[in-house]
Amino acid sequence: MMLPALSDIQSAHIRINPFIHRTPILTSRQLNLIYGCELFFKCENFQKVGAFKFRGATNAVLSLDDTRRKRGVVTHSSGNHAAALALAAGMNGIKAYIVMPENAPSVKKDAVAGYGADITFCKPTLQAREETCKSIMDSKGATLIHPYDNFNVICGQGTAALELLEERDDLEFIVAPVGGGGLMSGTSTCVKGINPDIRVIGAEPLNANDAWKSFTTGILTPSVNPLTIADGLLTSLSELTFSIIRKNVDDILTVSEESIINSMKLIWERMKIIIEPSSATVLAVVGENPALFRGKKVGLIISGGNVDLKRLPWC
Amino acid sequence: MMLPALSDIQSAHIRINPFIHRTPILTSRQLNLIYGCELFFKCENFQKVGAFKFRGATNAVLSLDDTRRKRGVVTHSSGNHAAALALAAGMNGIKAYIVMPENAPSVKKDAVAGYGADITFCKPTLQAREETCKSIMDSKGATLIHPYDNFNVICGQGTAALELLEERDDLEFIVAPVGGGGLMSGTSTCVKGINPDIRVIGAEPLNANDAWKSFTTGILTPSVNPLTIADGLLTSLSELTFSIIRKNVDDILTVSEESIINSMKLIWERMKIIIEPSSATVLAVVGENPALFRGKKVGLIISGGNVDLKRLPWC
Repeated sequence: MMLPALSDIQSAHIRINPFIHRTPILTSRQLNLIYGCELFFKCENFQKVGAFKFRGATNAVLSLDDTRRKRGVVTHSSGNHAAALALAAGMNGIKAYIVMPENAPSVKKDAVAGYGADITFCKPTLQAREETCKSIMDSKGATLIHPYDNFNVICGQGTAALELLEERDDLEFIVAPVGGGGLMSGTSTCVKGINPDIRVIGAEPLNANDAWKSFTTGILTPSVNPLTIADGLLTSLSELTFSIIRKNVDDILTVSEESIINSMKLIWERMKIIIEPSSATVLAVVGENPALFRGKKVGLIISGGNVDLKRLPWC
Repeated sequence: MMLPALSDIQSAHIRINPFIHRTPILTSRQLNLIYGCELFFKCENFQKVGAFKFRGATNAVLSLDDTRRKRGVVTHSSGNHAAALALAAGMNGIKAYIVMPENAPSVKKDAVAGYGADITFCKPTLQAREETCKSIMDSKGATLIHPYDNFNVICGQGTAALELLEERDDLEFIVAPVGGGGLMSGTSTCVKGINPDIRVIGAEPLNANDAWKSFTTGILTPSVNPLTIADGLLTSLSELTFSIIRKNVDDILTVSEESIINSMKLIWERMKIIIEPSSATVLAVVGENPALFRGKKVGLIISGGNVDLKRLPWC
């Protein structure tokens, strides 16, 4: 199993740079006061399709050879990767087949449809998603672009941390959410490749704590029917992302649902930006571990901003 | 009655510059496609206290002489000016007395209290506000800083447009919301002083259309019990702001409540930023007048982002 290196992420960044937004790094004096540390928010909610996933999908699509380009790409995703692949493929004249769970947020379904992808709905189980995906691969010859168990996707996701460290070389911590581990794998590979002294922390909902379990026990332990408001973090690590995370991540810290919701609301209220629950886990980690972060310079990867505005957790 | 000039706004900008945020100018390719023009959003929702009002309040506070500084300042406001004056005064060691209508959004009440101001609640009528204010002026010797009927406040508000034109000298339109007319007065004075060819448009809710009535008839005509979701625009023009607006504004365009809500939701969804209903009027004006803006470069002043997240218009 080949693990990505910093140079792979740097190459990915050059490849995808003409297509992605360079997202801003925001700060908030109010939040710094509340948390007693200096926070730097890398705002991938402002990325195309509203999530970091566009980075990985674009890198994967641009890495296809001509034969594969003609046959199209297929994936299953709870939402942001689906939209990302649909747009990345569409921008490059490639057909995208998207398998989505029927209970995905409507804002995510609409986005994927709007990018012109061919959508197939399935039951919200990993097995149903994988089987539907497989049948499209067989019938269309499409290349599977897995949301996170994919070398090129991981390298693309790591480019957010690359940009963050280009602008802030004094960070002592970087915190990113962990779902399937694609963002965490790319982030940790990038950070440790640039400066091994920076501590890399994964933020995971307690209610979907497969990465914490796997990291702590050393045995890959997928979640069984996790239930969390952080709908982007329901997936479990793969062999590939687990290997990368074991090697590069310093710790995985879990957070409560209440803490996720409160952190999300605080960012909306104070920073006036819209982030999704999955992104709020990173601030929740800082809030639940005050001694660890006190007085430190902390980079937070805000993973996305796709929220169904009619179904907010505090309404 | 002395009307402000561009030089007064430039002086105000130098005065307040160490205290304010220089807010970003955001763009959205998606919204440009939808509206068929190039939109430049001057994001005062990212200003301190979450609204442009901090500019005017800071300029007013910094313009006080030593005797007046010691006696403090007082104002009545539906919210953002209250928070702005509370913070501006607090940052300069000046006591602030704030008269607020008892039905102001809780997020605004909390903010004012958090800045250490002395709050007095009153009935939500102009008469009650003014009487309460007057009694505090009499008993404390505090200086009234009116939310908009004040030369220095108007000059401060105009600095948002000054920054916008510093960064974008190719704009053909600038649209700002009209409530009491402070922002509109400062904006229009600034814009016409820099380039009279830029068309300055006021955006006003149809349900609180006193500025439109006054502008159209030439007779100052205050609203009677206006009812709009744009809670920052319930106030009516004063003699001072009406005089400035008649001189400098090209047109006032009114928008429906539905159009305000749809524009607000679209900005939340596509731009991932939180704006308040009053700010959405500017995009609503563009949406309701497609022929006027087609193919143009349009600056929009996004006035603020203070919203009660538990009471959203689409929930």
